[in-house]
Amino acid sequence: ALEVQKTVKACFDFSVPLVARGRGTNTTGAAIPLNNAVVLSVERMNQIYQTSKADRLCRCDSGTLNGDVQRAATEHALMWGPDPTIADYSTIGGNIACNAGGPRAVRYGTTRDNVLGLEFVTGYGELIKTGVTTTKGVVGYDLTRLMCGSEGTLGVVTQATLKLIPKPSAVATLRACFRDIESATAAVAAVMAQPEQPGALEFMDSDAIQLAQNFLDTGVPDGSAALLMLEAHANSDSLPSAISALQKAVSNPGLLEFRVAETAEDATNLWACRKALSPALRTLAPKKINEDVVVPVSRVPELIRGLGEIGARHKIRIVTFGHAGNGNIHVNLLGNPTDAKELAVMHTCLDEVFRLVLDLEGTISGEHGVGIAKRPYVAWEIAENALTLMRQMKNVFDPKGILNPGKTLP
Amino acid sequence: ALEVQKTVKACFDFSVPLVARGRGTNTTGAAIPLNNAVVLSVERMNQIYQTSKADRLCRCDSGTLNGDVQRAATEHALMWGPDPTIADYSTIGGNIACNAGGPRAVRYGTTRDNVLGLEFVTGYGELIKTGVTTTKGVVGYDLTRLMCGSEGTLGVVTQATLKLIPKPSAVATLRACFRDIESATAAVAAVMAQPEQPGALEFMDSDAIQLAQNFLDTGVPDGSAALLMLEAHANSDSLPSAISALQKAVSNPGLLEFRVAETAEDATNLWACRKALSPALRTLAPKKINEDVVVPVSRVPELIRGLGEIGARHKIRIVTFGHAGNGNIHVNLLGNPTDAKELAVMHTCLDEVFRLVLDLEGTISGEHGVGIAKRPYVAWEIAENALTLMRQMKNVFDPKGILNPGKTLP
Repeated sequence: ALEVQKTVKACFDFSVPLVARGRGTNTTGAAIPLNNAVVLSVERMNQIYQTSKADRLCRCDSGTLNGDVQRAATEHALMWGPDPTIADYSTIGGNIACNAGGPRAVRYGTTRDNVLGLEFVTGYGELIKTGVTTTKGVVGYDLTRLMCGSEGTLGVVTQATLKLIPKPSAVATLRACFRDIESATAAVAAVMAQPEQPGALEFMDSDAIQLAQNFLDTGVPDGSAALLMLEAHANSDSLPSAISALQKAVSNPGLLEFRVAETAEDATNLWACRKALSPALRTLAPKKINEDVVVPVSRVPELIRGLGEIGARHKIRIVTFGHAGNGNIHVNLLGNPTDAKELAVMHTCLDEVFRLVLDLEGTISGEHGVGIAKRPYVAWEIAENALTLMRQMKNVFDPKGILNPGKTLP
Repeated sequence: ALEVQKTVKACFDFSVPLVARGRGTNTTGAAIPLNNAVVLSVERMNQIYQTSKADRLCRCDSGTLNGDVQRAATEHALMWGPDPTIADYSTIGGNIACNAGGPRAVRYGTTRDNVLGLEFVTGYGELIKTGVTTTKGVVGYDLTRLMCGSEGTLGVVTQATLKLIPKPSAVATLRACFRDIESATAAVAAVMAQPEQPGALEFMDSDAIQLAQNFLDTGVPDGSAALLMLEAHANSDSLPSAISALQKAVSNPGLLEFRVAETAEDATNLWACRKALSPALRTLAPKKINEDVVVPVSRVPELIRGLGEIGARHKIRIVTFGHAGNGNIHVNLLGNPTDAKELAVMHTCLDEVFRLVLDLEGTISGEHGVGIAKRPYVAWEIAENALTLMRQMKNVFDPKGILNPGKTLP
């Protein structure tokens, strides 16, 4: 922390921009240095200081890998909620800066719901301790959550106290295939409205199913227009009732097939369709644009229909999948952005996608953040008077504007 | 909202202090006007605009009663997480300003974990919309959580979008009596470390049990030095396994008796001991000082022992009970603060209590907040450089310092 502080202070004194960087896995360019910024890597600040079973917390450096925290927690039958796909290669500091989510967020929340306290260096070089070591605390302003998702523009996180939660001792994987999108989203709403919250609730549209099936046949029944992958998180006693509660919730007239993985091998097979998707998409369109918009669950059918119309109008194939329980849909534009003409069409598409999402009372990012990529769109979602307030806050934390310039706020 | 905005603008123009007030149930003086402040009551801004089952949200005015939101949610088999004892007489705006908790927070979090978006008026009269209508969102800085717990010093909340959650369709009440404090806190840690999270996990020390028993005999076995009240929240299928998971977790050599309420009447009887406590304490010491400190669960035995020593040294009876799963202990100093000499002793006691809590890596408030009462102690917990940062933030939101002066920040 002292070295970070000295570095930031030197940058402050000489008005040199600075970007803190973990492993650089962010997909919106948040970790890319602009304006000839100094890159401050926290990669080697990776010590875990404390993992407590009784207090369910982990105190570690910001450069610690998410996967290392998960392994330390597992020794106490605990886990840390946020589980981005890239967990084994992303840092806690990066997870905090981007407010990482992942499939488990549907049950356990995103990063901001799983951080108790922080130590960070402001843009003027002060080392600030904020937050608590407990699950409750209401003294002073909540700087801890403010830092979550601020993409390194308010301070450089050096240490974090993470809230750990009990790891479910029994997990079952379930797959539900539906005749149409409406039945699938009705099932999502029904699942989320009953007390047995799923540990994951992933969605794939018909195009996504087709692509994945072509890549690897996972036995999805013909005529499936939408697919849900669920996990039941419980203990061995309560697993059967957890499964039956989820099955009951997804059972509607549009349900074509419901399968429960009985063994670990079965589970891997069921997940195969979902996991086959990313390689399939990359094969088809290596430079696809992947956005992560969010709409209220009840508006997902309108979103999917609207995306279909946008894609048809511009002749761009759009494939959607994502974290349905949160209404967090990854929208993949399968085009070739290296072709200037196609890139222009893709950008027109994107504009229409974001307009649609905002019309549906959604938000343009659920977990990937703003970075450079979505910065032009922020003012579509946030009113000018709120942006002015945020810019003034930024000015308090970073009066010379040296921290991660060109990101987040337009 | 427009009337609120006009009022704040007028106060801004004439540099007149202003305190927003719901029903004034805060216990630390946060809603009491100082400096001849104008009191802006939101009591009649109490409309519920939307309650959605599919999207699990409620949009309402800040003056809406917590109880009214709960009733609206119940119609959809949903509930709002925060459940302060005074739910029927406290407003959503007040819950947000104070980041209200209550017994259910152990499973569902406090207010900041259950608010999606806000509309508020800054100290310079701007109406700001912040947050989203979904459970994920990471565009711009997180002003929503920043407002939670800021006690009306950053803005006047006019409207809120609340995150609703499924109401458990089956609830069981459990009571566990222990031979000693250590066994009870070991049970608390064991409960919190397994996946079946309790819907409530309340603690009473031996003095609290004795007082409650004298007031109303609820059949607590002799020799009980500590008592835990638990709730299992589940559906009818999973309730038995939820109960057995909690029973397994509290079963240690110090457990004297474990009882499960089979009927609603049984449940009322079991809760009777806990509910008898407040009237018993008020009868004994009508002007008792009640604090709500938090320590990591593993440090609760040290806290209880330390409190015993402080009480003995100053001849002040100290009774503790509270939300054990969060380590959130209500410390009751049974003295008579109208006697100036006794008040001085009580204040010396309080100082020692807060020092003890901070030595145990705790925080001086879990849910009651700072207000006027704890303001002198804030600097014991938060370092000067963090307070400076917070004061500068306050200055951004409220440049003339008209919002709730004399509260929260020292």
